[in-house]
Amino acid sequence: MKFCSNCGGPVVLKVPAGDNLPRHVCDACLTIHYQNPRMVIGCIPEWEDQVLLCRRAIEPRYGLWTLPAGFMENGETVAQAAQRETLEEARARVELADMFAVLSVPHVNQVHIFYRARLLDLDFAPGAESLEVRLFPETAIPWPELAFRTVSTTLRHYYADRKVGGFAFHSGEILPAR
Amino acid sequence: MKFCSNCGGPVVLKVPAGDNLPRHVCDACLTIHYQNPRMVIGCIPEWEDQVLLCRRAIEPRYGLWTLPAGFMENGETVAQAAQRETLEEARARVELADMFAVLSVPHVNQVHIFYRARLLDLDFAPGAESLEVRLFPETAIPWPELAFRTVSTTLRHYYADRKVGGFAFHSGEILPAR
Repeated sequence: MKFCSNCGGPVVLKVPAGDNLPRHVCDACLTIHYQNPRMVIGCIPEWEDQVLLCRRAIEPRYGLWTLPAGFMENGETVAQAAQRETLEEARARVELADMFAVLSVPHVNQVHIFYRARLLDLDFAPGAESLEVRLFPETAIPWPELAFRTVSTTLRHYYADRKVGGFAFHSGEILPAR
Repeated sequence: MKFCSNCGGPVVLKVPAGDNLPRHVCDACLTIHYQNPRMVIGCIPEWEDQVLLCRRAIEPRYGLWTLPAGFMENGETVAQAAQRETLEEARARVELADMFAVLSVPHVNQVHIFYRARLLDLDFAPGAESLEVRLFPETAIPWPELAFRTVSTTLRHYYADRKVGGFAFHSGEILPAR
């Protein structure tokens, strides 16, 4: 951020009075421009014993597999974001079950949230940001080709819970790979 | 948003190619300025059968009571945000328990997340944004003077769960008051 989105003047990075972190501040119109983490919302679409994954048609992680998910928009709920992203990326309609995982990814200023969900029909297809959309049984999950650690972590929790016969809610964090 | 924070040129509101929502776009440097919901993170600090509330010294809702909570910052986890806000607003140290509630507030573009937490000592005091910080037993909770519906909803879930002897995770949404 170099310019004030309110008045177009230059911004400086400084700690505003009463604050304790540097912010982009406009000395002309006095606007403080806060920057905050963004939420990535998605779901685990289930069909019998399979889950739906999307192969990414965009960077980052072009060509790798992911659960349908994307940035939450203003004006929607977390649940609406999960359904919208699933429709956009996999052209799939789901009925959401419980919220399943909330994972902080502090080094990229994101929080990823996944629901469990029931796929309502098999009329799915790649959306504009997907190369391919497919159902996978657990034995076929392409673990080394998953796009994000939040996705692999969520799926690991999912299969571990399924094995013990009950789904729990999971929260946690993904730290930078060493 | 009137000006581009990258180049200082004017922005226009339009739907970028491949998108389906209007965004603030700079026609000079081609930057698309996305705006996304923000997260408000806090906790329910418990001490024996009491919980800690803060009376707000800032707008909105000056003078009303709230759980310690505030905007999540870049670079931190949800759990770190809950502990930091509790320290800032109530000068209180807590050990977090489970994530307890995730509540969407779509009409203000926010998601509020609360943990249950154990107050580690009684050396709490009002932070800069609080007029007063006090422990309340359930019978003394100032329900009509709570600052936000996410706080009253979270506390209602908390006391309902406590009554049945087990805390569950809650997700939901707060719609505009009619």
